[in-house]
Amino acid sequence: MTRVATAEENAMNDMPVIHGYDYGTARTAHSPITVDELRMLEQTVGWTKADGEAIAMAAEVLAGQEEAMVDSWRSVIGEHEHLAKWFFGPDGKPDETYKAAVKKRFVRWVADLCRRNRDQAWLDYQEEIGLRHTPAKKNVTDHANTPPLVPLRYLMAFTSIVVTTAKQFLAKKGHSPEEVERMHAAWTKAVMLTLTLWSRPYTKEGLW
Amino acid sequence: MTRVATAEENAMNDMPVIHGYDYGTARTAHSPITVDELRMLEQTVGWTKADGEAIAMAAEVLAGQEEAMVDSWRSVIGEHEHLAKWFFGPDGKPDETYKAAVKKRFVRWVADLCRRNRDQAWLDYQEEIGLRHTPAKKNVTDHANTPPLVPLRYLMAFTSIVVTTAKQFLAKKGHSPEEVERMHAAWTKAVMLTLTLWSRPYTKEGLW
Repeated sequence: MTRVATAEENAMNDMPVIHGYDYGTARTAHSPITVDELRMLEQTVGWTKADGEAIAMAAEVLAGQEEAMVDSWRSVIGEHEHLAKWFFGPDGKPDETYKAAVKKRFVRWVADLCRRNRDQAWLDYQEEIGLRHTPAKKNVTDHANTPPLVPLRYLMAFTSIVVTTAKQFLAKKGHSPEEVERMHAAWTKAVMLTLTLWSRPYTKEGLW
Repeated sequence: MTRVATAEENAMNDMPVIHGYDYGTARTAHSPITVDELRMLEQTVGWTKADGEAIAMAAEVLAGQEEAMVDSWRSVIGEHEHLAKWFFGPDGKPDETYKAAVKKRFVRWVADLCRRNRDQAWLDYQEEIGLRHTPAKKNVTDHANTPPLVPLRYLMAFTSIVVTTAKQFLAKKGHSPEEVERMHAAWTKAVMLTLTLWSRPYTKEGLW
């Protein structure tokens, strides 16, 4: 029986193939976190039905701006050697091939954060993203030779940039200050939710 | 030689003694993080001179509102057993003595976040706060018998509440939307900075 894809499915699938973007595939890590535990985390960040509506609005507003957002974050990273060096090759210079490969997935992450259903496949890919910042999987996807880690301190602290700078992009399409505020709160909650999941592989046994 | 205390010193010291509030004392853990590393983290959250001015304004705006903020957060915690249970005694009921003791320090944390200079004493106390959420030091200060941990997942995810709900308190004293916005961005950065430091004792060797 042939099923007609929904508009949303088309929006998710109608993207160029991105190397290493293994969302929903068997190549992705399996998260040990259950969907029930995810629901508890959603409650913990304060996620509500209104946030669901606001993040759907944000998905529309940010559509087409994803790369500009990542460019603005990359620009901050490039200003500080303690942030940039995790992208350096053995020659002490930025590995541009690796940077470009990661960037495509980072851009896609912006869209996914606003659009994806939070189910087991979503959990699994958050686990995968976390692992790709640790020695377990950094460099593996892209056969790169950069340092084997992005230290948790920088992953966490940089989230502040991802949260605070998003507002200007959310305000670019003429929405009211109240709408921008609601979208920004939902964005903040969504970012904190994924950051929390990414921290799992960094954490000592039993403490996460 | 007698030195006259500055207004700020009076503001910091003119508080009732809070049990376990060991800021700047030898009872506090020593952070292995240096002030130079802290400066790199400040850059990573995007901290600027303007944020320093905005957080000083926030200190004034939030003065007297600290307890109401903590009450609002405690109210969210109380709504969810997966958040509340870390305050439960062996009888499965909230340990009200422990809750009251922790609350005084939580209230003080709001003021400190806006007012304290970020030096080694500040770093040391962030380390101490982190440890007090882990088996190394939870319950010790208050001789309590609650679970030995607040899991990192909840410490991190709940930060979203602390960030998003602060805005209403920052808006309560008649500042312009732009001023509230600047204070809220500085608040977000400051919260992410302390959260990052609190995560250190949770993290596997070499990954923080």
